[in-house]
Amino acid sequence: LPIAHLAHVELGVPDLDASRKWFTDVMGLFVSHETPERVYLRAWQDFDHHTLVLTRRATPGVGHIAWRVKAEGDLDEFHASLTARGDAVEWREGDEPGHGRALRVTAPSGHTFELFHEVERHVAPDELASALPSHPQTFEGNGVAPRRVDHVTILTADVVGLQQWLTDALGIRLNYFAEDEQGDVLGAWMSTTPLTHEIAVMRHPEHGLHHFAYSLDSPDDVIRAARLLVEHGTPIEYGPGIHGTSGGFFLYFREPGGNRIEVWSGAMLLFAPDWEPRRWTHELMRAFGGNMFGSPPPESFRQGT
Amino acid sequence: LPIAHLAHVELGVPDLDASRKWFTDVMGLFVSHETPERVYLRAWQDFDHHTLVLTRRATPGVGHIAWRVKAEGDLDEFHASLTARGDAVEWREGDEPGHGRALRVTAPSGHTFELFHEVERHVAPDELASALPSHPQTFEGNGVAPRRVDHVTILTADVVGLQQWLTDALGIRLNYFAEDEQGDVLGAWMSTTPLTHEIAVMRHPEHGLHHFAYSLDSPDDVIRAARLLVEHGTPIEYGPGIHGTSGGFFLYFREPGGNRIEVWSGAMLLFAPDWEPRRWTHELMRAFGGNMFGSPPPESFRQGT
Amino acid sequence: LPIAHLAHVELGVPDLDASRKWFTDVMGLFVSHETPERVYLRAWQDFDHHTLVLTRRATPGVGHIAWRVKAEGDLDEFHASLTARGDAVEWREGDEPGHGRALRVTAPSGHTFELFHEVERHVAPDELASALPSHPQTFEGNGVAPRRVDHVTILTADVVGLQQWLTDALGIRLNYFAEDEQGDVLGAWMSTTPLTHEIAVMRHPEHGLHHFAYSLDSPDDVIRAARLLVEHGTPIEYGPGIHGTSGGFFLYFREPGGNRIEVWSGAMLLFAPDWEPRRWTHELMRAFGGNMFGSPPPESFRQGT
Amino acid sequence: LPIAHLAHVELGVPDLDASRKWFTDVMGLFVSHETPERVYLRAWQDFDHHTLVLTRRATPGVGHIAWRVKAEGDLDEFHASLTARGDAVEWREGDEPGHGRALRVTAPSGHTFELFHEVERHVAPDELASALPSHPQTFEGNGVAPRRVDHVTILTADVVGLQQWLTDALGIRLNYFAEDEQGDVLGAWMSTTPLTHEIAVMRHPEHGLHHFAYSLDSPDDVIRAARLLVEHGTPIEYGPGIHGTSGGFFLYFREPGGNRIEVWSGAMLLFAPDWEPRRWTHELMRAFGGNMFGSPPPESFRQGT
Repeated sequence: LPIAHLAHVELGVPDLDASRKWFTDVMGLFVSHETPERVYLRAWQDFDHHTLVLTRRATPGVGHIAWRVKAEGDLDEFHASLTARGDAVEWREGDEPGHGRALRVTAPSGHTFELFHEVERHVAPDELASALPSHPQTFEGNGVAPRRVDHVTILTADVVGLQQWLTDALGIRLNYFAEDEQGDVLGAWMSTTPLTHEIAVMRHPEHGLHHFAYSLDSPDDVIRAARLLVEHGTPIEYGPGIHGTSGGFFLYFREPGGNRIEVWSGAMLLFAPDWEPRRWTHELMRAFGGNMFGSPPPESFRQGT
Repeated sequence: LPIAHLAHVELGVPDLDASRKWFTDVMGLFVSHETPERVYLRAWQDFDHHTLVLTRRATPGVGHIAWRVKAEGDLDEFHASLTARGDAVEWREGDEPGHGRALRVTAPSGHTFELFHEVERHVAPDELASALPSHPQTFEGNGVAPRRVDHVTILTADVVGLQQWLTDALGIRLNYFAEDEQGDVLGAWMSTTPLTHEIAVMRHPEHGLHHFAYSLDSPDDVIRAARLLVEHGTPIEYGPGIHGTSGGFFLYFREPGGNRIEVWSGAMLLFAPDWEPRRWTHELMRAFGGNMFGSPPPESFRQGT
Repeated sequence: LPIAHLAHVELGVPDLDASRKWFTDVMGLFVSHETPERVYLRAWQDFDHHTLVLTRRATPGVGHIAWRVKAEGDLDEFHASLTARGDAVEWREGDEPGHGRALRVTAPSGHTFELFHEVERHVAPDELASALPSHPQTFEGNGVAPRRVDHVTILTADVVGLQQWLTDALGIRLNYFAEDEQGDVLGAWMSTTPLTHEIAVMRHPEHGLHHFAYSLDSPDDVIRAARLLVEHGTPIEYGPGIHGTSGGFFLYFREPGGNRIEVWSGAMLLFAPDWEPRRWTHELMRAFGGNMFGSPPPESFRQGT
Repeated sequence: LPIAHLAHVELGVPDLDASRKWFTDVMGLFVSHETPERVYLRAWQDFDHHTLVLTRRATPGVGHIAWRVKAEGDLDEFHASLTARGDAVEWREGDEPGHGRALRVTAPSGHTFELFHEVERHVAPDELASALPSHPQTFEGNGVAPRRVDHVTILTADVVGLQQWLTDALGIRLNYFAEDEQGDVLGAWMSTTPLTHEIAVMRHPEHGLHHFAYSLDSPDDVIRAARLLVEHGTPIEYGPGIHGTSGGFFLYFREPGGNRIEVWSGAMLLFAPDWEPRRWTHELMRAFGGNMFGSPPPESFRQGT
């Protein structure tokens, strides 16, 4: 499979300064680069230049979703295969720091995906350089301090359509799906790595963002994050709880721009090369899948960012 | 203050075998002694003979609540002072294993309290003996495996009356209290040790038990417990969350007999000898006091066991 | 790359009953199958039939090391490519439960590797069946209770030779290596998945086993394990500490048969498709690589099982 | 017993700026007050004005060790009883912020102890004010971020003499003691609260400081601290490990001035009013008491600060 992993996600934010301040001071991310219109951020153990782009925009929501491919030549093959499928593609070069030429493609849902291979390493400034040659920088531990990017969950009216496009056009594997009372698919969780999902798709009348997630190391870390968030003016929207689907211990909240952010820990790793997508019926989803501990999400959680 | 600490709590259970099995297999407590009508249990780092007594009874709920006093002579002083107050007292001797003569007193709320001093040590059988001379037994780690008894929360129509009786008659300190919308006291949390509470009183038309709590070491342990409970047929009633009042990370559920049980970790220790009772208004209680993370308790949580 | 992941490891044990008892009671693994000469074990979130085989044998040490390949046809391709290389290969069928035909190959170091694709699922008996369709069984939490198999570390006089054979013959990626004072390679860590290593090779005059590792979820879990082990007669040989190389929080000890076992948590995941092997010089290895916290290993740790 | 709890400890530091920077940036303590010669610090859940005083001085080591008494009148009673014993006492007033008049007494070992009752509350500035009325300030989570002061360990040639003075003159309880190979007392651990020790005494030819300790919440927190310390230039001197004596998970290191600092979590609470001091023989101490996991301390650990 030519896609290696989820690389970064762009979020629109109405007040760039407020969101920048929150992502650095409260979340504990690091600025890799910034312009008057954009801030590029990474977590302390993200190896790439950035995993989040904040873009000044009237409304919150998701911009492009970027994936790294395994080799530079894969981009040309994707250009050919996507063009052959009739998908709208576009080359981009030099408009984002930290990576080489990129191929952008618009999904039938309207979401924009980006593919690239070349990356810039050694992003951390000298004062954050680690003595450990394996590590991209020191652990600073300020704020929520997630370890690395994890996944993005997007909204579309046609979950099965978008899931199949992600599988057919980009080669992303379906790992499990949830059904509504009628047995129609409400959500699909997908990845190219052993993570339970790097991208998930949930049903909503309008296309958009449900949430963007970073990974923490333990329940202790998630609870430390929850306490920090609440004491610094960021209410918890949903959680803590365990998604029975993945086994991940979750927490959802909103950054100042309105985008829903998740931190979680402890989800399974799926190494089987022939993993069969698991079916979560409406009943199982209500009982355990959404939250093993039983607390249902608030009504707001059914909405996008 | 002559009371040293909360010693044990008696719970009525309709099916003694089912509750015994759950408390040993799922909770991971240890049986110190049993008779056809009663099972005496302790946690792995409880130093006393038992911290929980299960008694076969038609309905769940709380029996006697026992405290250890600092010296044998304190019992005689309590006998004199309680009698002088007009409280109904009664000596008990030999009806419970693990401790010496006991003084029982009935509170105005109808709850029964017990005081004793002499205790039996070295309760653990040889196969659980620890090589560490400070420890009452080995850590086995099976089931929820709480470290030690923590507190009991009881119900009464007159919270202030019972709180004042506990302070005046038994010398138990008020640490914080919660008010309803009218500013009347809804709940009071009290202790004789640095624990935020060994006993709490909550308002309810009928006197009874709200919950009985054991202590765990970390959020990780609480989440491990939650997962174990759910996967073994014990649903979570409320939590996980943090009580803003105490800072404790909580989880509530029911044992098979219907008694509500809590495990929690991370509450503050209050060492100040002149700690002033903190007031939690209705607004603060709703925003942070009940659960810092915001999720309100289910309706069932307002009811007793 | 045709290899999907490390599947299982066979350990020789002089007293099969004693090792079986320890791996089930203290480690908290589950028996999938057993014969008078062998016991097949799995962790609670291992998806395959078994990840450990105990074989009655005069001396401890490693038997075959098995990998799952992505497709059945990969076996035939490996047969062809290994034969062409001149490696000694052998087909095995039906001699182990839980998987289909297997191709065995002997490395130049003398270690035996096994490759297979077909696997048996749904291994857990009814009483361990989880209500969660994604999970292979319930979480029981008894003993150390590791989540899943992690890696095996083997010994050879020619580290570079074995590392290159693993890369050339089996396609396993080198992630980092350690050098001695002369700059010669002392150890090499390798994987086919984002784990920092599924197999590592360390220098020793005789070929054999250094250790076999399972994965836990957090430092809390590792410390819980250490306490359980010590209180139940299994001394800690080395740790707890953090390997600076991988960031993993480690603990080493011996099962009753003498094989060194590790549990660890928190190592990095390496998603980059072009990860460049990191070099750990002797100085860096002593300062941080072996143990970020500085405590050097005991002399025994330089020896095999 | 008139002493309520350990209040604060004064440490001498040769470079006040360097130590101030380290205690705020790396340890995550908060400055309550400072003068050109002194810095007063507290942890995020310390309720008193300060728990650590840094004093500019040529050499590191311990200055006065302060305890809070239960009532103002206890000071006069201590003045009388200490004078009657022939101990050298001195009144101090207004020379330290955050508390009222203080009685200082010099122990036979040469250590200076301070007693006071009146304290200043509401120390945190507005930007650290918590919305939770029970809490002294917000949780910020920067650096090691210990929750509260825990204990101090001092050195003397006559352990039994100093222990008996602490018990007889100040009323501090002996909880456990360690013996050397000859059965002489090497160390004594003492407290006035349920903590296993607020003060410990260890044998050394010269009187001085062994270490000063703050409390963390879990093994996860201790390991987070260890990683932060190492990556920011503070090597770990000893640990992590569990003291079998107390069950506490420990980590020792040096602040820039040379004083040894400990953070730990998970020690027992001792509520029994008649706790009998536990004896740890040399053999038990070596096997489990010093470190349950077996790693002995480095030679440097036998020395004072």
